Amino acid sequence: MSKDDLNRIFLSEEEIPTHWYNVQADMPNLPAPSLNPKTKQPLKFEDLQAIFPDELIRQEMSTERWIEIPEEVREAYKKWRPSPLYRARGLEKALDTPAEIYYKYEGTSPSGSHKINSSIPQAYYNKQAGIKRLATETGAGQWGTALSIACQAFGLECVVYMVKISYEQKPYRRHLMNVYGGRVIASPSMETECGRQILAKDPNSLGSLGIAISEAVEDAAGRDDTNYALGSVLNHVTLHQTVIGQEAKAQLAKIDRYPDPVIGCCGGGTNFGGISFPFVKDKIEGKKVRLLAVEPAACPTLTRGKFAYDYGDTAQLTPIMKMYTLGHDFVPPGIHSGGLRYHGASPLVSQLYHDGLIEAVAYGQNEVFAAALKFARTEGILPAPESSHAIKAAIDEALKCRESGEKKVILFCLSGHGHFDLAAYESYLSGRLKDVEYTDEMIAEGLKNLPRI
Amino acid sequence: MSKDDLNRIFLSEEEIPTHWYNVQADMPNLPAPSLNPKTKQPLKFEDLQAIFPDELIRQEMSTERWIEIPEEVREAYKKWRPSPLYRARGLEKALDTPAEIYYKYEGTSPSGSHKINSSIPQAYYNKQAGIKRLATETGAGQWGTALSIACQAFGLECVVYMVKISYEQKPYRRHLMNVYGGRVIASPSMETECGRQILAKDPNSLGSLGIAISEAVEDAAGRDDTNYALGSVLNHVTLHQTVIGQEAKAQLAKIDRYPDPVIGCCGGGTNFGGISFPFVKDKIEGKKVRLLAVEPAACPTLTRGKFAYDYGDTAQLTPIMKMYTLGHDFVPPGIHSGGLRYHGASPLVSQLYHDGLIEAVAYGQNEVFAAALKFARTEGILPAPESSHAIKAAIDEALKCRESGEKKVILFCLSGHGHFDLAAYESYLSGRLKDVEYTDEMIAEGLKNLPRI
Repeated sequence: MSKDDLNRIFLSEEEIPTHWYNVQADMPNLPAPSLNPKTKQPLKFEDLQAIFPDELIRQEMSTERWIEIPEEVREAYKKWRPSPLYRARGLEKALDTPAEIYYKYEGTSPSGSHKINSSIPQAYYNKQAGIKRLATETGAGQWGTALSIACQAFGLECVVYMVKISYEQKPYRRHLMNVYGGRVIASPSMETECGRQILAKDPNSLGSLGIAISEAVEDAAGRDDTNYALGSVLNHVTLHQTVIGQEAKAQLAKIDRYPDPVIGCCGGGTNFGGISFPFVKDKIEGKKVRLLAVEPAACPTLTRGKFAYDYGDTAQLTPIMKMYTLGHDFVPPGIHSGGLRYHGASPLVSQLYHDGLIEAVAYGQNEVFAAALKFARTEGILPAPESSHAIKAAIDEALKCRESGEKKVILFCLSGHGHFDLAAYESYLSGRLKDVEYTDEMIAEGLKNLPRI
Repeated sequence: MSKDDLNRIFLSEEEIPTHWYNVQADMPNLPAPSLNPKTKQPLKFEDLQAIFPDELIRQEMSTERWIEIPEEVREAYKKWRPSPLYRARGLEKALDTPAEIYYKYEGTSPSGSHKINSSIPQAYYNKQAGIKRLATETGAGQWGTALSIACQAFGLECVVYMVKISYEQKPYRRHLMNVYGGRVIASPSMETECGRQILAKDPNSLGSLGIAISEAVEDAAGRDDTNYALGSVLNHVTLHQTVIGQEAKAQLAKIDRYPDPVIGCCGGGTNFGGISFPFVKDKIEGKKVRLLAVEPAACPTLTRGKFAYDYGDTAQLTPIMKMYTLGHDFVPPGIHSGGLRYHGASPLVSQLYHDGLIEAVAYGQNEVFAAALKFARTEGILPAPESSHAIKAAIDEALKCRESGEKKVILFCLSGHGHFDLAAYESYLSGRLKDVEYTDEMIAEGLKNLPRI
């Protein structure tokens, strides 16, 4: 069988990357320093010690190019890494495109998405630091599941503050965390001062990601045995996700391919950074490769937001970061790609986008689900709605190749499966899914309350 | 890295089996012939032509040892085959056993279970025969999903009669079939004479697998463009599943291992046959290998049923088969392993069990879910409740090794993931799951109405 005939390209366990790649070593401009939300001065190492172990703070601030992956983490990765790279032959055929389409599939992980690439090292470093318990928040449940599995693997307790409306409407996600030993609390809760205050004012509050973050941070800051864990946005989280792009690059190299474009969906930005950052240095050195971030039109952070200092959360408890933002009190509508409903984008992605090294595009959810359905019916795999944004962009690129006759090598990250998103598919199939349109005035409204730095 | 250190053993695409293995070539005693339900005479080739294509009837009746897998089917298999073989290091450690535990994981297939190993060739042969449309029944939805995907791949229409209570209580399974283009009809329906008759008598009928089979068979028999497809029990279905055991054997051989015991859960018997039949010849030739079928205590076909001629369905429309049975009007309680709720076992499995080449054991659902939870927490993967029967047996075998000090090589088939079974896990975690106990009198009751042959 010739290399050109392969349907899946595997790597051996020995080919799991030995280091994470830190894009900060190669960026033309480093992101502006994040600021302490109280003092508005550049964030210091000590500012983060109440909630993160030292090693993760070092990674957050490091500009070293390669950071070694601990042996215990690589061992844990072996349950699902290296993940497969698929050639999308069914999709290519359906599109009648001369392009080759490849997707790196992270849905074979125990948690069903890429999130576990970071929850494993986060649990590991906390365990090393003597921490007994991790607190986090979750919206749709992907990160809460990934952290529950990681805590189980390293013998830590896991407490997940889950936005109350998701807690009630998505019981299966909650049960899944319970199966993996996670304790799931509907937020706002009576377990934190912040939660009690909100419930005193509004006993029927349905919660928000902002409130859940506040509760998890309060929980972690108030207990010596507990730290906080975040599944997106931050530098160290993006760092851990670079195993995705490194593996994909090695897999394509095995069949003598190099991708252009490289595509990922973009919410907080860690999945997109994971697939694309390992190609940034090549691009800076003149290699022809477009890096394309795909976001929902209902939360168009890169394509319509502002590059400015802003808080990471509604309650203004997190550090102030320089990033593309729609405003920390922008509330995206309830679209089905819960994992992409975030008002900001990671400072690393934002800086690279600002410097023209990354491109971005936004799609409405109906066209994204149409792409998801085409993918499911030609490739068999049911994609997560979030990941389907990348599929839509890949399809559009492949159709352009049909016009131009170009034989491009398109690579995208299929960051997770959609086994827990069937209610969303049903909405689409029954024609009940609505797209959201923003006027420039509505976007401007969200940007009115940026902090004055 | 030494072979002994591997966590997953892969095969290349070229190592997908080229032939299915037909155990009938090696059985000491062939199963007694199946009978026409009307004439009670041995079933003739023509009797099946109204609902099956000739090639599948030939496979059903063949005693050739090897049957070639068509190139188009092997191509379609490449989306997920060869499936991975995992070493259960986390589970071994938790059990503190000297045994090595391996599991063949079929949950990475597009349909999430082994069922698609047979739906693909069934759709293929029907397409070759000029059929445009396949009708089937589904209880929990695994087979309906697998057939929807296969029909989509070969450009056939797919109509799935889904037991009405499942249709209403498990909407996600139904949406999944819709995503893959399957048309799902709540059974009993107004689309068939049989359905209309039942609804005339009882407009609120919740349906049963027996009724759904009758509707699908009536649909297929009444239209020239339509055939019927069944996902279990029959010889040709078991034949297709032997890719599982063949691959597992080759994977273990790569690390110089040979298994004993080989374990699979057993409902209709095709998953169990798939993992175990490729070891039958070795056993007949004197190799030490136990083949262990695991069934639910709530439907103890092999362990407490009778080896006798019986109908495959409640409505007495299917051929009469010689098999272990609890009686065709035995109605198993609503346990969460829907895929194992069948009153009979495949004639091939039944004959081999009768001849002492296969062993069987039954477990209650609470002990099975306890095993499932231990597995999820140590191995990461969330197993289907059906597959968890095999996990429970593997754990018991490994614990025996802890007592005896034996370093056995235990192999089991993890036939599917449990992503659509979280309601069942929740029942278990909240302590609401009930075990079912049968008296000998209750079992005898079910056996009262066996046909007189």
